[in-house]
Amino acid sequence: MSMFSGLAAFPITPADADGRVDVAALRGLVRRLGEAKVDSIGLLGSTGTYAYLSRSERRRAIEAALDEAGKVPVMAGVGALRTDEAVALARDAKAAGAGAGLLAPVSYTPLLDEEVFVHYQTVAGESGLPICIYNNPGVTHFTFSAELIQRLSGVPGVVAVKNPAPPADQVGAHLADLRARVPAGFSLGYSADANCAEAMLAGGDAWHSVLGGIFPETTMALCRAAQSGDAAETRRLNERLEPVWQLFRDLTGLRLAYAAANILGLTQAKPPRPILPLSEAAQARVATVIEELELS
Amino acid sequence: MSMFSGLAAFPITPADADGRVDVAALRGLVRRLGEAKVDSIGLLGSTGTYAYLSRSERRRAIEAALDEAGKVPVMAGVGALRTDEAVALARDAKAAGAGAGLLAPVSYTPLLDEEVFVHYQTVAGESGLPICIYNNPGVTHFTFSAELIQRLSGVPGVVAVKNPAPPADQVGAHLADLRARVPAGFSLGYSADANCAEAMLAGGDAWHSVLGGIFPETTMALCRAAQSGDAAETRRLNERLEPVWQLFRDLTGLRLAYAAANILGLTQAKPPRPILPLSEAAQARVATVIEELELS
Repeated sequence: MSMFSGLAAFPITPADADGRVDVAALRGLVRRLGEAKVDSIGLLGSTGTYAYLSRSERRRAIEAALDEAGKVPVMAGVGALRTDEAVALARDAKAAGAGAGLLAPVSYTPLLDEEVFVHYQTVAGESGLPICIYNNPGVTHFTFSAELIQRLSGVPGVVAVKNPAPPADQVGAHLADLRARVPAGFSLGYSADANCAEAMLAGGDAWHSVLGGIFPETTMALCRAAQSGDAAETRRLNERLEPVWQLFRDLTGLRLAYAAANILGLTQAKPPRPILPLSEAAQARVATVIEELELS
Repeated sequence: MSMFSGLAAFPITPADADGRVDVAALRGLVRRLGEAKVDSIGLLGSTGTYAYLSRSERRRAIEAALDEAGKVPVMAGVGALRTDEAVALARDAKAAGAGAGLLAPVSYTPLLDEEVFVHYQTVAGESGLPICIYNNPGVTHFTFSAELIQRLSGVPGVVAVKNPAPPADQVGAHLADLRARVPAGFSLGYSADANCAEAMLAGGDAWHSVLGGIFPETTMALCRAAQSGDAAETRRLNERLEPVWQLFRDLTGLRLAYAAANILGLTQAKPPRPILPLSEAAQARVATVIEELELS
């Protein structure tokens, strides 16, 4: 399943100040990913600002991206605060032809494990869209236990998980533990780019990448090195990207991705308010790193 | 300003499974608060599930509550993930006649202080609705520093803050620090019911209360005791409510409020999915506490 193996590249979703998606700019970003031969596209992820876009704009984005992506599989973010809204979004994604849905347990009132379980069961069951569990406590404020992932992996239609990659010295044990808990073919993928090369070396199935959404060639080279099992080359390439990982830590991935897309001239879109664009100084720092490392 | 002094009672917002507000049931809840002579009504707070309701349903709720509330001032929750949506909600609330808006820095991507500042400045400035800062890190995942509250208290239209009440041994210092930072007349209110009687004894201006939204008479008695400065009576009444505070800790305020409203026969509405109603056993425990303490 190429949908859930190798590099899943997560682009931003350019939109105007009113939240109207710039379909032409989005097509340009998707085309760039296709040309770099990424394994799949993760549309409307967190960096893709799904949480800030209306149902109709999310549908417009999916339709344009699918049309542009051609044969590259597309997974679309279908998370919402309400279960009925997540079901509707998943049905929209399926109707438009998306191959899978990325479902985060978006929360306001903190959620209990049983509530999250029923939420996933309902969305997968009522939409018929294959669902990837989106574990990202930094934005959802819900942390999946290994036990809950195990239980969800037995729900029909729940086919993958995207976990934040633990540090290099822990990812092997993390992966072995999960592998023993889920059915064969259930994809164990990782996000948090700075730790993902090691996660792929350790045997992770997929790298869900923000960097890949904006610099697909650079990220693909690193991903392929890891997939080939060449630890020395993987670590050399990963080490070389340390200034980029430092930008992620200092500026956050979403703000960094918008600045990079602006610098590359791919779009002049800004993040949705209240999120502000990076300062001029921070943008200059991003531009320097892009140039010095020849990111592409 | 009765809007921001004494007891602000926060009712639930009964709605069906599709998120359609049950206006008749909401009117019944508001009437109950008016009869108990609460100082103000906090409509569409966190327990009032504002985050889970559409703009049109929030407007319906405000219009019905204002009509039923008569002369009791109403503050309405106007928080949203996007700044433009929060502006629109605040304009709706003002147009309907609400006296103030309760604005939480709802977040998905974690927000920076400057982003939150501009968000408040924009909503207050563009709506003209007096704004109460809603500091509730447990749901918004943003924590206001004293410095940020100080800075925001200088923004025209930002008139109050609702902070989670610290424990009894810290609330005096917390209040003294804030009082020195904000203009005269800026309301320093507290939430987190279990700690609020002490916060009022310490000189807090307002008690923003979930308990008051469902048991207004019981809560008003405690609030008035604290406001009269009778520490011994306040602590006796507060001590008596310890089984209720334990229910809040064990079951969370929102789930507890729905169960209590169901038990009292005020509405059969359930919380919005994915939030699930309490188990039968937990509901029985709530019923026992209501009966034994004669909550009203």
